[in-house]
Amino acid sequence: MDFSIRAANVEDCKDIARMILELAEYEKVADHVKVTQRDLEQDGFSKNPFFHGIVAEVPEQHKTKEGHTKIGYALYFYSYSSWSGRAVYMEDLYVMPEFRGKSIGKALMSKVAQLGLAAGCNQLNFTVLDWNKPSMDFYLSQGSFDVTADMGYHCMRCEGEALEHLAQP
Amino acid sequence: MDFSIRAANVEDCKDIARMILELAEYEKVADHVKVTQRDLEQDGFSKNPFFHGIVAEVPEQHKTKEGHTKIGYALYFYSYSSWSGRAVYMEDLYVMPEFRGKSIGKALMSKVAQLGLAAGCNQLNFTVLDWNKPSMDFYLSQGSFDVTADMGYHCMRCEGEALEHLAQP
Repeated sequence: MDFSIRAANVEDCKDIARMILELAEYEKVADHVKVTQRDLEQDGFSKNPFFHGIVAEVPEQHKTKEGHTKIGYALYFYSYSSWSGRAVYMEDLYVMPEFRGKSIGKALMSKVAQLGLAAGCNQLNFTVLDWNKPSMDFYLSQGSFDVTADMGYHCMRCEGEALEHLAQP
Repeated sequence: MDFSIRAANVEDCKDIARMILELAEYEKVADHVKVTQRDLEQDGFSKNPFFHGIVAEVPEQHKTKEGHTKIGYALYFYSYSSWSGRAVYMEDLYVMPEFRGKSIGKALMSKVAQLGLAAGCNQLNFTVLDWNKPSMDFYLSQGSFDVTADMGYHCMRCEGEALEHLAQP
């Protein structure tokens, strides 16, 4: 199937917001999604953006029954490792279910890798849910490794009232 | 003990590079550290920096026997959650062993939280090694939670030849 990958622009935020919710539904955490189309527009497409995005599109003749031609996306931002330097972090990688198995996810991830290498990055980092075996298998097949299983790193978070409290001098 | 926390500048990179190596020695991975003072100067203190830093300093009378007055640091960068929006990621938090137990680590982490909140961030994210019980206990005591243990997220990485290969179209 024909598809194309391109940098996301502000007009894509409606579709990205839709797909963020679809991905969260798949991950069984749709109620955790607070980000809106407007947040994406402000946070990704103003000066000093907090993230960058790419989208996968199919031609009109392959649009979904709801009329969607934007059928996948990845969000990423630049980060840093104090061991190995410049890095890129892939926050999300998503392809709509009916378009899976066509190497679109691979093409999106490959594009993030290209952009990272072009910016001098030595690592591509991301997270995956341990019960999401199809995704884990895909990432391992692409030469990624499980930093948590292999080295013991755990993801930690402080948010909400705990974050407000932590920030008190 | 008196100490102060301030934004890092390019003159701090020599001490930050020294402390990155000390932290890696503590984590038993000193051979993984490829980042040099010069990398830090270029990546953190040019246009579009890949990270920001803060340092903890003690007065001259409390300097170490090697003469160091910069005795702790944190590196951080802004990131994004497609669920909750703007976030800050703390890449490193380190206080030299002889200065621990004086709330300097807490003050560094609190400063990162303040900076994150001021930038509109809803989350402070970081990683910790699962065998590093003193650090884990400290972070949990500050209201952080273990995203890996509680939700099943694993940190994944692609680097080196695998990253080059992934980037092939």
